[in-house]
Amino acid sequence: MTDSALHPFDRALALEADARDADLLHGHTSADYWNMVGPFGGITAATLLQAVLRHPRLLGAPVALTVNFAAAIEAGAFSVRATPIRTNRSTQHWLLQLSQLDCDGVEQVSTTGTAVTALRRETWSELDLARPQATAPAQTPPLNTSGKGVAWVQQYEMRAIDGAFPSTWDGSGEHSRTRLWLRDAQPRALDFPALAAMSDIFYPRVWLRRATPVPAGTVSITTYFHTDAAQLAEVGSGYLLGEARGQAFRNGYFDQAAELWSEAGELLATSNQIVYYKQ
Amino acid sequence: MTDSALHPFDRALALEADARDADLLHGHTSADYWNMVGPFGGITAATLLQAVLRHPRLLGAPVALTVNFAAAIEAGAFSVRATPIRTNRSTQHWLLQLSQLDCDGVEQVSTTGTAVTALRRETWSELDLARPQATAPAQTPPLNTSGKGVAWVQQYEMRAIDGAFPSTWDGSGEHSRTRLWLRDAQPRALDFPALAAMSDIFYPRVWLRRATPVPAGTVSITTYFHTDAAQLAEVGSGYLLGEARGQAFRNGYFDQAAELWSEAGELLATSNQIVYYKQ
Repeated sequence: MTDSALHPFDRALALEADARDADLLHGHTSADYWNMVGPFGGITAATLLQAVLRHPRLLGAPVALTVNFAAAIEAGAFSVRATPIRTNRSTQHWLLQLSQLDCDGVEQVSTTGTAVTALRRETWSELDLARPQATAPAQTPPLNTSGKGVAWVQQYEMRAIDGAFPSTWDGSGEHSRTRLWLRDAQPRALDFPALAAMSDIFYPRVWLRRATPVPAGTVSITTYFHTDAAQLAEVGSGYLLGEARGQAFRNGYFDQAAELWSEAGELLATSNQIVYYKQ
Repeated sequence: MTDSALHPFDRALALEADARDADLLHGHTSADYWNMVGPFGGITAATLLQAVLRHPRLLGAPVALTVNFAAAIEAGAFSVRATPIRTNRSTQHWLLQLSQLDCDGVEQVSTTGTAVTALRRETWSELDLARPQATAPAQTPPLNTSGKGVAWVQQYEMRAIDGAFPSTWDGSGEHSRTRLWLRDAQPRALDFPALAAMSDIFYPRVWLRRATPVPAGTVSITTYFHTDAAQLAEVGSGYLLGEARGQAFRNGYFDQAAELWSEAGELLATSNQIVYYKQ
């Protein structure tokens, strides 16, 4: 299989093991998942998680992932360091870092993070969140993403139940909630890195709340995974139901809470992020 | 002022600067904030944040804090390392680590974390979360915390509006939401470390949901700060209104979302944590 036969997501997540350092991997930014001035934050989160999943000492599956966007990532080569800093009987704690060489050849850290992986056992389980009301995907019109001017949006099929991208910037916003169906535009079976990426798919809530296109960007995102390989396999390349809403907007930063559900009604991931905005 | 004249919270957060390393501070666990088999997670989160706030290169005020509880902290001395890994014009990214020497004198990392601090400017601001309904503090009976058998609980005055600690473990739980008034038992003006600690004040939601005392412990907590020094000064030693609720309980891990409000109705912090539980 040639590289071009791979799914764009797998091409973006292709990492080469360092010959001498088991914690180190090397990659390259993807034009397919480019945002306005750097990679889509979701693809960066997925890349850091992929480095964990590729590590020879990995224990279990992802439970929590925090990614901090410390500085812009330039188009080109990068290195990811995933260090299993503490391995217990059933949990493992990871330090994560993405860096690039600047023009003087000095390593600059642009992204930091932590992750927890764990061996999970079957226990009493319960959902205390209600699944959002939603029209069926086939009854929900697809978003026209072709005019949005950023590449990564084209990689997803999105169908907004409510809270679609504002059609006019007239300051008329009244709420900050979006519900949508989403899946990869080119079908791909769901896995943990895809879930990490999709957790960041919701555009900044401040745009919806204000119907005003102020500069905004995610500073830090934390995703909790409530699923496992068997459940992911059942979802396959099916739709996810996503909801995101803003909470507090104050003096340049707001937080948004998000959920990703399977079409069958399982809560696969909950995610929170804090986002910088101007004005 | 002698040490014993200090507030227990300030005694717990007393850190000594390392003579040679600006990123390193030395402290000692506090009996006042002891939990069942280690320190109250909130005091550990507050200690890591305090290390950031004490750093000579600090830029701005806390925006986000993630703390991962990787291993038990033993009673005794510890070191905290707070590294400003990236300083931008208005934001600063921190790596955090708490470690102790084991009996062989080898440094063992028990807690990791990241923080973001920032210079904040006045902007358009809005709250999209509604403040929970609550009876006034004076009309809400205080929790009797003296019989709970853990020291840290005595450091807080709590008045539960609903979702108090289960009075009988009979498996009768129906929801996972607690609303309560809280403040330091011994009055102390609110600051960022106190807010970080109070974000972890809600007992594991699984106990309320199941009315069953299964083993449970926080694995990772992320808190977003929506406040500033002026607002904190207005709150002073007044009550905070706290709410916490579980979201997804599945195969050994659940997440809980929490909010801390001022009595005047300002949302000071939102917090999420993922918690391990058994059975």
